[in-house]
Amino acid sequence: MNIAILLYDKLTALDAIGPYEVLSRLPGATVTFVAQTPGPVRTDNGMLTILAEKAIDEVQAPDILLVPGGPGEVAARAGGPTLDWVRTAHETTTWTTSVCTGSLVLAAAGLLNGRRATSHWLALEQLARLGAQPVSERVVFDGKIVTAAGVSAGIDMALALAATIAGDQVAQAIQLGIEYDPQPPFDAGSPAKAPAEIVSLLRRGSRFEQGEVAAAPR
Amino acid sequence: MNIAILLYDKLTALDAIGPYEVLSRLPGATVTFVAQTPGPVRTDNGMLTILAEKAIDEVQAPDILLVPGGPGEVAARAGGPTLDWVRTAHETTTWTTSVCTGSLVLAAAGLLNGRRATSHWLALEQLARLGAQPVSERVVFDGKIVTAAGVSAGIDMALALAATIAGDQVAQAIQLGIEYDPQPPFDAGSPAKAPAEIVSLLRRGSRFEQGEVAAAPR
Repeated sequence: MNIAILLYDKLTALDAIGPYEVLSRLPGATVTFVAQTPGPVRTDNGMLTILAEKAIDEVQAPDILLVPGGPGEVAARAGGPTLDWVRTAHETTTWTTSVCTGSLVLAAAGLLNGRRATSHWLALEQLARLGAQPVSERVVFDGKIVTAAGVSAGIDMALALAATIAGDQVAQAIQLGIEYDPQPPFDAGSPAKAPAEIVSLLRRGSRFEQGEVAAAPR
Repeated sequence: MNIAILLYDKLTALDAIGPYEVLSRLPGATVTFVAQTPGPVRTDNGMLTILAEKAIDEVQAPDILLVPGGPGEVAARAGGPTLDWVRTAHETTTWTTSVCTGSLVLAAAGLLNGRRATSHWLALEQLARLGAQPVSERVVFDGKIVTAAGVSAGIDMALALAATIAGDQVAQAIQLGIEYDPQPPFDAGSPAKAPAEIVSLLRRGSRFEQGEVAAAPR
């Protein structure tokens, strides 16, 4: 099973690495990090560099495609070879997946028209503008497309996908292997649960609330 | 605030990237990935390469030190410049932290003698053999040393540390920013909760159950 994780400049690292840590443990899985050009890719805050092992051209038909999010998604979904590759790869994938604002890339590629999908909570309106039917859920399956909410949701998505692909026992073994028994110190991980002033704070700071122009959906 | 995350060959990526994603969002934080030699570092499964930006020699006095785990910890704690650096850096840190079997490196450096600490659930006995007082908790604070359980526990640890450093509101804002509202599909993330046959399966496959010789504690 070939799993391709797309990298691009200014991605959010955990969007990619959470699912990688889960999916790479599936029996027979090979994960390949790909980018338009192979080599170093810098994350959103400039503090981390991950290597893309292969060019997108070299990975034509992954079984699973994963598109992470991050501020670099704006450039990724503006058009060009990466967006074309996402669209073409999707034709033959078993599963096409995204984490966080990676779903905006899927949407810009025309893959989410009228489909139920999720994204980072701050990006749900943008997702609607790109033609999807946004859903405030942590993991959304719609046919072979699986989208996850913001950043850390990729771990939950990957475990749900692992269970669908390889069965509950394999997914539980992976969960126990990564000791995923989450105990966050606060119950503040969604806008429905966090204190209102913190939700407002993040809204005010969001690039989606500052008049970003939507890329026209295809 | 300078945060150094140690990299070494065959580390487990999420151990490092989970806390990075949280701690890099602290106001004024700079995260630097360091290794004995700067450059590409390959993770445990060989499928991912992360760049170490600096040599350990170049980062002498980080405010926060984070040591991830992974099978490469055995070589890291066998002695040599990396272990010496951990010991020296700890003298001036504000916080010395580990995720998963990274605590075995702290222990081998002599930092956990008699101290309460945790590790991956499969490594708790090894942690005891290295002189620590193992605790089956997800995050353990003992003075300025903070240890986390396996792999994904680094996210919880980093949020708890963020709250201690910058206050609950900042930690909650980070949690909401990474939408950390975990919803694992199973309640199988700890040996106390997972089905017994899955716990046995992982025990049988563990490198800690196969006669690995403990590095002598200093």
